[in-house]
Amino acid sequence: MGGNNRTRHNREIERKFLVKWLPDDLKRSRSFVIEQGYLAAEPPSRQVRLRKTGRTVSLTFKVRRDRHREEREIKLSPKQFAALWPGTAGRRLRKVRYEIPCERLLIEVDIYRGRHAGLVVAEVEFPNTASCRRFEPPWWFGREVTGEKRYSNVRLALQ
Amino acid sequence: MGGNNRTRHNREIERKFLVKWLPDDLKRSRSFVIEQGYLAAEPPSRQVRLRKTGRTVSLTFKVRRDRHREEREIKLSPKQFAALWPGTAGRRLRKVRYEIPCERLLIEVDIYRGRHAGLVVAEVEFPNTASCRRFEPPWWFGREVTGEKRYSNVRLALQ
Repeated sequence: MGGNNRTRHNREIERKFLVKWLPDDLKRSRSFVIEQGYLAAEPPSRQVRLRKTGRTVSLTFKVRRDRHREEREIKLSPKQFAALWPGTAGRRLRKVRYEIPCERLLIEVDIYRGRHAGLVVAEVEFPNTASCRRFEPPWWFGREVTGEKRYSNVRLALQ
Repeated sequence: MGGNNRTRHNREIERKFLVKWLPDDLKRSRSFVIEQGYLAAEPPSRQVRLRKTGRTVSLTFKVRRDRHREEREIKLSPKQFAALWPGTAGRRLRKVRYEIPCERLLIEVDIYRGRHAGLVVAEVEFPNTASCRRFEPPWWFGREVTGEKRYSNVRLALQ
């Protein structure tokens, strides 16, 4: 089980956009349902999240300070997950994620379900600031919402 | 591993006291070192705690609403614990707990170490309100601090 633990400790270089149109070839992209809920969200930006992606269940700790982020994720056993999941009642969200390769980058398109149905968001992570600056949003992207709290997953789950 | 998960869902009937004198027979009581840290503490009273007691490591989710509390605990593998523990840096506390049977009750005496050294607290949990009312603090108990936030573990760990 330990082999599936993951720790990230880095500066965050990513941009987030609303999605105006779904690209025609979306259905050909790899996709999966994500269900997630928050055990605790401590202001300003410290959280413990439970997530279910297919058969994989995990617990993730995240904290951000300025643009630095620390992320620690462990895979849970189904029984560990089942014991904790009820603690996220009323603080959950569900979305379908599509992964779309785009030049050397990966665009993650999240189509929200449930009470946020209608919201579609695309996120792109960059290997460095140069590629971040160079990035030209494809025609189907809408307004950029990088850093807008109202579109953060934790805010959407809790509101 | 699932067999060690524990869920509590109950009204909370417990009282907490400062300890004036350590009882002479303390050293004969069962005792163990507890090290704990908080991944997140969401106001007013939602928290995710990591705890190490001897060789046992666990993650506990707690939430209180009025006098009702929900508590969900899972045992972690050493590797899961090692992956998450650094996330509690600067938000930890260490104490030695002594368990002292007293009539049909159990008194838990916590002797804090580290920057809270000098603080000694006793906690008693009751099976019902009648026994709670009937309880007569032993001579070595000091002031009652039930419900005082400044003596909560999460507050002590974070301050």
